[in-house]
Amino acid sequence: MRWLRFTHQGQPTLGLLQDGQVLLHRGLPWAAPEATGESVALADIPPSAWLPPVQPGQIIGLWNNFRAAAEKNGWAAPAEPLYFLKSPHCATGHGQAIPAAPAEVGRVAYEGELALVIGRPAYRIQREEAAACLFGCTVANDVTAMELLNRDASFAQWSRAKSLPGFGALGPWVDTDFQPATATLHTRVGGRERQNYALADMFFPPEELVWRISQELPLRPGDVILCGTSLGVLPMKPGTLVEVEIAGLGVLANTYG
Amino acid sequence: MRWLRFTHQGQPTLGLLQDGQVLLHRGLPWAAPEATGESVALADIPPSAWLPPVQPGQIIGLWNNFRAAAEKNGWAAPAEPLYFLKSPHCATGHGQAIPAAPAEVGRVAYEGELALVIGRPAYRIQREEAAACLFGCTVANDVTAMELLNRDASFAQWSRAKSLPGFGALGPWVDTDFQPATATLHTRVGGRERQNYALADMFFPPEELVWRISQELPLRPGDVILCGTSLGVLPMKPGTLVEVEIAGLGVLANTYG
Repeated sequence: MRWLRFTHQGQPTLGLLQDGQVLLHRGLPWAAPEATGESVALADIPPSAWLPPVQPGQIIGLWNNFRAAAEKNGWAAPAEPLYFLKSPHCATGHGQAIPAAPAEVGRVAYEGELALVIGRPAYRIQREEAAACLFGCTVANDVTAMELLNRDASFAQWSRAKSLPGFGALGPWVDTDFQPATATLHTRVGGRERQNYALADMFFPPEELVWRISQELPLRPGDVILCGTSLGVLPMKPGTLVEVEIAGLGVLANTYG
Repeated sequence: MRWLRFTHQGQPTLGLLQDGQVLLHRGLPWAAPEATGESVALADIPPSAWLPPVQPGQIIGLWNNFRAAAEKNGWAAPAEPLYFLKSPHCATGHGQAIPAAPAEVGRVAYEGELALVIGRPAYRIQREEAAACLFGCTVANDVTAMELLNRDASFAQWSRAKSLPGFGALGPWVDTDFQPATATLHTRVGGRERQNYALADMFFPPEELVWRISQELPLRPGDVILCGTSLGVLPMKPGTLVEVEIAGLGVLANTYG
């Protein structure tokens, strides 16, 4: 199933995608939402109406979770998932402009990523419970102010550099059936492919992330885990269209600036 | 005015403290809440019923914001506020037990702090607008898993080490009239004073924090900024009562473990 959110008649509205139609629902997708009986054609949703497919209570972002990137950058294999928190306020939807960062922030990079959406509370779960806590997957652009991140030598500013408005682009939908293990992610910047990597290259694959992160951090329905990115990250010029595609899941397209 | 939240007849309930009575209200304290006409005596609120005085959308925590701590630790004066995000899920109220962290996490420290509560949306505000965006102040214990924070040499795990359940203790109330500039914070651990510092010793005082942080991070009503701690941080043994008192504001008391 594919669940999306968009502004419909002025209200944030949940929809289930089926054969090009969006069947409107009330409630939350992981909590037995109720069909209203109304529907709209997917093609009739204006680009400006898309919302992030969930309203996350927290957004967790992984650092150094791909072998190819670690190898190229000379990073040791992590002993455990290494993560930061992004502000939940930075979530934005498919089709939305990511506002250009203020000039003093410096260069801003795209990072195409797989995002996991939690569907059940998870705290100190067993490894075999992780799959049931995962509601589904979506596509993310984990936008990062590269220079801000490291401009203070005494303190890496992960949360700040990752939390400007629109820096957490998510969408277009959450797919509850998608199997990431064999999929590939492509990021196109102004139409040119800049990232092309296999999701199987993660040090900590999706279920292991949920299991391990839950050992200290309680996860709640709607929380989002960004699985980290691989090679090909570059700064964006204002006006650039960035499309992150995960084959079999969807294409998240946003213009920067 | 002093606003608090507690569980009343099974529901999270907002109250205005007046002469030992808690006048129940509907709504949010910064958005013209409505008195219900009911009240309860403050003394009749059972310890287990206290909730964090706000439900923060994000919790920002400052590092290295006190001159005395910087001097003792050999840290350079920061050029700008240096902060991390704590999970909003870790907020807990006055009187609540902070669960002992799992053994593998290692030592856990208290950090008595002043907390600021935002009352108006703030993004890229002018310096002179900051005071109006500040709703009030409360007391915080910014609990920290000290060993977890630095156990990976390649990546300081600020968000993780600060976000275990109950690691964001806030309360007992938000005071909208409190003036922190001349106040002193005391932390007592098992009855023994371990922290005693002047809030005036901040590199970036409250209004400057709001102004500066808002330049990249949109702040929303209910968001919390923890102003950082000073000298006297030590690990806690399970079973320890930690009381953080800010003279003129209140005493936040929680048992660890």
